[in-house]
Amino acid sequence: MNLDALFSLNCGMYIISSGYNGKYNGMIINALVQVTAFPNQIIASVNKESLTLEYIKKSGLYNISVLDKDAPLQLIGLFGFQTGKKIDKFSKSQFILGKNKIPIVTDHTVSYVETKVVSKLDAGTHVLFLSEVLESEFLTKEEPMTYNYYRDVKGGKVPRTAATFHPEEADKAEIERHRCTVCGYIYDSRYGDPDSGIDCGVLFKDLPEDWVCPICGAGKDKFVKI
Amino acid sequence: MNLDALFSLNCGMYIISSGYNGKYNGMIINALVQVTAFPNQIIASVNKESLTLEYIKKSGLYNISVLDKDAPLQLIGLFGFQTGKKIDKFSKSQFILGKNKIPIVTDHTVSYVETKVVSKLDAGTHVLFLSEVLESEFLTKEEPMTYNYYRDVKGGKVPRTAATFHPEEADKAEIERHRCTVCGYIYDSRYGDPDSGIDCGVLFKDLPEDWVCPICGAGKDKFVKI
Repeated sequence: MNLDALFSLNCGMYIISSGYNGKYNGMIINALVQVTAFPNQIIASVNKESLTLEYIKKSGLYNISVLDKDAPLQLIGLFGFQTGKKIDKFSKSQFILGKNKIPIVTDHTVSYVETKVVSKLDAGTHVLFLSEVLESEFLTKEEPMTYNYYRDVKGGKVPRTAATFHPEEADKAEIERHRCTVCGYIYDSRYGDPDSGIDCGVLFKDLPEDWVCPICGAGKDKFVKI
Repeated sequence: MNLDALFSLNCGMYIISSGYNGKYNGMIINALVQVTAFPNQIIASVNKESLTLEYIKKSGLYNISVLDKDAPLQLIGLFGFQTGKKIDKFSKSQFILGKNKIPIVTDHTVSYVETKVVSKLDAGTHVLFLSEVLESEFLTKEEPMTYNYYRDVKGGKVPRTAATFHPEEADKAEIERHRCTVCGYIYDSRYGDPDSGIDCGVLFKDLPEDWVCPICGAGKDKFVKI
């Protein structure tokens, strides 16, 4: 058994968003795929602990933003590593409202899909929402980010709630890492912080004193070695 | 509404295989994604008209071969455009038996996943099978083929049973095409037949007289203009 082989199953990087009663939330997901063409239907796997799931259950609606290759870790961090139970993610990002009145994040978004849920399946830690496509449009001509690109090139940490989190992978990365005590972001010296101009291989102690957490903006003093 | 935007939802190219009572079948699918990590579960969308679906329903087991970028149209044609109701696909391809006694195609296979079905969801034309990963291994270090690579670079025709078949896409391609009356393969002069050394732009009438259908081997005389 080599769980790394599961990384050869291709997937993308998306923000799934929903809302209910004037409140909005969204989160990063990668477990999403089109499953039928007549009609066009997609399925999305949403963690049971997420606020987004609560809104999808109540409204029966969700939208998808397909992130582009240049989407910064800050955006991925906001929607992937923070919970809407504590902050209003949509106050910190660009969005439009779809025809279904559900928000669509437009920051670094190649295209979007508006959907309405038609049925669901319990998958243990996640619920799978089968939904019909109501609308789909391109916003830019950029290339979509794949999950493997995010993992390999952007050096992103995989949130524990992600469908593709592999404990083995996390174990391998337990070297020279520092965690932000504010938002949980992990600085891994092997990857650096390319979005802030920090090359791979730069040790935490050698980061500039004015370097801040690329996700929440906390200073170096808010980091602990792990 | 621009249905092409649905192509920005990333997916791969897989052969899903199953078997029952000593009989095997398999088919190309692209609608497959990992949906949970505790335990590792995947979901696959399988057309209701397929023999593979019958075997999955009876055995509760299926395996996945992740195709590499160089997988030839012949292999994709065998598993994607022909039905196991008429031919024995496994007599024409390399395979091994998994620990679950279900075959795994090994031709141009980067990695494979063995699974057992835990639940299913009706999606109209397709059934979605949620299954737990029993085994996963790499066979080579080649790069997996994505569906968009297959579509753009290999110039493959999308079978009508595929989850991502878009009528608009097919309409755009209705120029200078010839269909094999034996297997249904379509020669499109805009794409040529790279696996047989035929460049893009070669008209059907200019193909060598000994050129044969890359999928079933039928001669030029078995083709009709469409």
